[in-house]
Amino acid sequence: MSYNHQHLLGISGLTTDEIFFLLETSQKFVEISERSVKKVPALRGKTIVNLFLEPSTRTRTSFEIAGKRLSADVINISGSSSSTTKGETLIDTVLNIKSMRPDVIVLRHAYSGSCELLKKLVPNTRIINAGDGLHEHPTQALLDALTIKQELGTLKDLTVTLVGDALRSRVARSNILLHKTLGNKVRVVAPPTIAHSHFEDLGVEVFYDLKKALPGSDVVMSLRMKHEYQKDYYVPNLDEYAVNFLLTESIISKYCPSAKILAPGPINRGTEITSELADGPRSLIFKQVTNGVAVRMAVLFLLVAGKNDYSPSEEEV
Amino acid sequence: MSYNHQHLLGISGLTTDEIFFLLETSQKFVEISERSVKKVPALRGKTIVNLFLEPSTRTRTSFEIAGKRLSADVINISGSSSSTTKGETLIDTVLNIKSMRPDVIVLRHAYSGSCELLKKLVPNTRIINAGDGLHEHPTQALLDALTIKQELGTLKDLTVTLVGDALRSRVARSNILLHKTLGNKVRVVAPPTIAHSHFEDLGVEVFYDLKKALPGSDVVMSLRMKHEYQKDYYVPNLDEYAVNFLLTESIISKYCPSAKILAPGPINRGTEITSELADGPRSLIFKQVTNGVAVRMAVLFLLVAGKNDYSPSEEEV
Amino acid sequence: MSYNHQHLLGISGLTTDEIFFLLETSQKFVEISERSVKKVPALRGKTIVNLFLEPSTRTRTSFEIAGKRLSADVINISGSSSSTTKGETLIDTVLNIKSMRPDVIVLRHAYSGSCELLKKLVPNTRIINAGDGLHEHPTQALLDALTIKQELGTLKDLTVTLVGDALRSRVARSNILLHKTLGNKVRVVAPPTIAHSHFEDLGVEVFYDLKKALPGSDVVMSLRMKHEYQKDYYVPNLDEYAVNFLLTESIISKYCPSAKILAPGPINRGTEITSELADGPRSLIFKQVTNGVAVRMAVLFLLVAGKNDYSPSEEEV
Repeated sequence: MSYNHQHLLGISGLTTDEIFFLLETSQKFVEISERSVKKVPALRGKTIVNLFLEPSTRTRTSFEIAGKRLSADVINISGSSSSTTKGETLIDTVLNIKSMRPDVIVLRHAYSGSCELLKKLVPNTRIINAGDGLHEHPTQALLDALTIKQELGTLKDLTVTLVGDALRSRVARSNILLHKTLGNKVRVVAPPTIAHSHFEDLGVEVFYDLKKALPGSDVVMSLRMKHEYQKDYYVPNLDEYAVNFLLTESIISKYCPSAKILAPGPINRGTEITSELADGPRSLIFKQVTNGVAVRMAVLFLLVAGKNDYSPSEEEV
Repeated sequence: MSYNHQHLLGISGLTTDEIFFLLETSQKFVEISERSVKKVPALRGKTIVNLFLEPSTRTRTSFEIAGKRLSADVINISGSSSSTTKGETLIDTVLNIKSMRPDVIVLRHAYSGSCELLKKLVPNTRIINAGDGLHEHPTQALLDALTIKQELGTLKDLTVTLVGDALRSRVARSNILLHKTLGNKVRVVAPPTIAHSHFEDLGVEVFYDLKKALPGSDVVMSLRMKHEYQKDYYVPNLDEYAVNFLLTESIISKYCPSAKILAPGPINRGTEITSELADGPRSLIFKQVTNGVAVRMAVLFLLVAGKNDYSPSEEEV
Repeated sequence: MSYNHQHLLGISGLTTDEIFFLLETSQKFVEISERSVKKVPALRGKTIVNLFLEPSTRTRTSFEIAGKRLSADVINISGSSSSTTKGETLIDTVLNIKSMRPDVIVLRHAYSGSCELLKKLVPNTRIINAGDGLHEHPTQALLDALTIKQELGTLKDLTVTLVGDALRSRVARSNILLHKTLGNKVRVVAPPTIAHSHFEDLGVEVFYDLKKALPGSDVVMSLRMKHEYQKDYYVPNLDEYAVNFLLTESIISKYCPSAKILAPGPINRGTEITSELADGPRSLIFKQVTNGVAVRMAVLFLLVAGKNDYSPSEEEV
């Protein structure tokens, strides 16, 4: 198996084999962050540009740590998507960065499809999509999958249930694409303003009642109800949302007692999930974050080093 | 002697021996920054997260330079304390960062006690307090003490006089705790709205008149009169403050002619201190900044390397 | 030949020999960024502070990449020129940074002459001017010259024509000084509110009509018409400017068919230059950006390493 793409723009387009190869490679990088000297020389002398044109602390930090643990030089550029510096277009910004000879550009951007645009207009540049609008966030879906695989031992024959605002979630979208590719069942449960019937076009089962959606779930993924989006009247208010959709230990233990809980974070405690559940034994939330560094190390390595086989366990700085 | 704590949260709780051990270790690191190749491999492969949730240039830069001169990977995260990214709590922010396996988190936060909170709620994470609200700023007090020791040859039997807004100064608080632990005399001189009698509970002598406070002082520390605080009517205005409390070469040479001048910076020239004094021979202001890098190298080394003995003079990259 | 200055504050004051020496040294560094492992150990253990007190992505990124490819530790400090942190003056900010023992400070500042001020008031600190107000931006003029030399094979007997807002452009100023020092002809063409007759005092020919300015030009440099400046009524509006001064492939191929096109960027497509021209074969715009990294590596190396001879081609990390 191998990963022979120049980019990682989304889960869309990846084969089952490629997904498994990415996860297996990621698993190899997990142990590096547990070492006393948590660093390998794999990308020494390589330049990674983190171009984050939408606010992000967690994902930027994860990619930065991943790059540095591979011994790469990491350059952070932050800004906003709507008004890039001095009115320059995204394409010119990337053309300029490309001229400084980075080995890969990690892009976070508020506009859906911005990474695809760059793939067409700025060829010969390696791009990793770190979240583009409402479109995709592939490394998040991969780190979720790696975490599930570690805990459940398999990524086959699963039922994955997404709770909350799947409509405006690139994390939901990438997860749906990943699990449908792997042949798993995916459910979305949320108020009807969010859980539209057109999720069914993606092969997803739609529910409006948590008690009906949870039974049989192996994994329950709590999605963010972004405060700013609720002004669009998708839900009357977040307190009412919580009355019907708040994930608690008692509801999980009643309806799907063996389920594991994931959340891409940041979590709104008391709105989406209780602290008892988020901090309890079935929660994999912080394990996801740990795996995020490993997944990003693997993706950076595969794209930049141009090698598909690597044994980090044999290397140290 | 040794430093066997997991954290450096404050001067409070440190013994005299521990303070002296921290200062002796700091002194060892001073020469590294004077080398042509100013770097040792001590923390190679370690990850330092600078989590600065309150604006800071000087202290963040000092910790970043310290970390890099120890060969660590340094990750900067900045933000504001009141509205952390996307509504996430400080505890969740730190739990997430912790999951990425940093070796130490350096925290600057606007809320007093935030570091103590983390010590309780996020155990097994090494934390250095880089200033928490009005509470403590231990590395500042240590670098002040190191500077005094280098200049006066001793930290015993001193009289240290703090001039200005000691009430809302974590620097003052950490210095008071340090010098009272070492058995030195500490004075605070300021308008009565600032120099409350409850400073006496800390063993500090309170003065309202500079001419009465200065005689006998070995060290005079000029504290910041923050413009934004004066809206609270602690002083009618800063010009009036300056009439009574401005530190000048002439007043120092008259009342405590052998005294050295320290200031944590940034200084308000003409309000707290004259340029003649700040830039003159008795000023240690910029020497403090130089020592700051050494103190932070020492603290980072002791917490992260887990070794108490180290001879940086024998090492080079 | 050699470069024996402590600073690079501007093109002003450099001799022809020094300019050529800087360009020859820069040329040596070009190939490093084309390597697979794009890094040399030249500045290992050195500290570079990027003090950018005016917004900049491109120049800051270029200096950061340059520093890291030389193996230096690079510290970024950003802020605004008018309100530096907590009211501190630029001089105190730099005195403080200097106390942390950086090997060089790269300064971007909104005030013309700020670098000269520091040279006087903070001696013994190496400073590179990365753009000071309307004054100079020497590394930009050097990278422009390096690009011209690579393309035309010479920097002698050229006619260099600047189109657009040369009045409020430090790039224009540094280019004028460079090409006048080398004995080249320099022209400025713009509306009369911009192309003042006092450009003639610098030995520049002034034109108000593109068709008269272009003939004989070897190099045409498209300068930014900053939107924010047009509020000052230098031109009625940018659309009217474009009617008369927009650079197109057809006008260039008619009036100076062998000319090369440069632009410091970011470019306003459709206002200053068409996409056909900017992205076409005579455009050197992105080659300039690539050369920018090499020029900054050379300048950082010469100032910090204190050596004038270096063969990076013999070195690798």
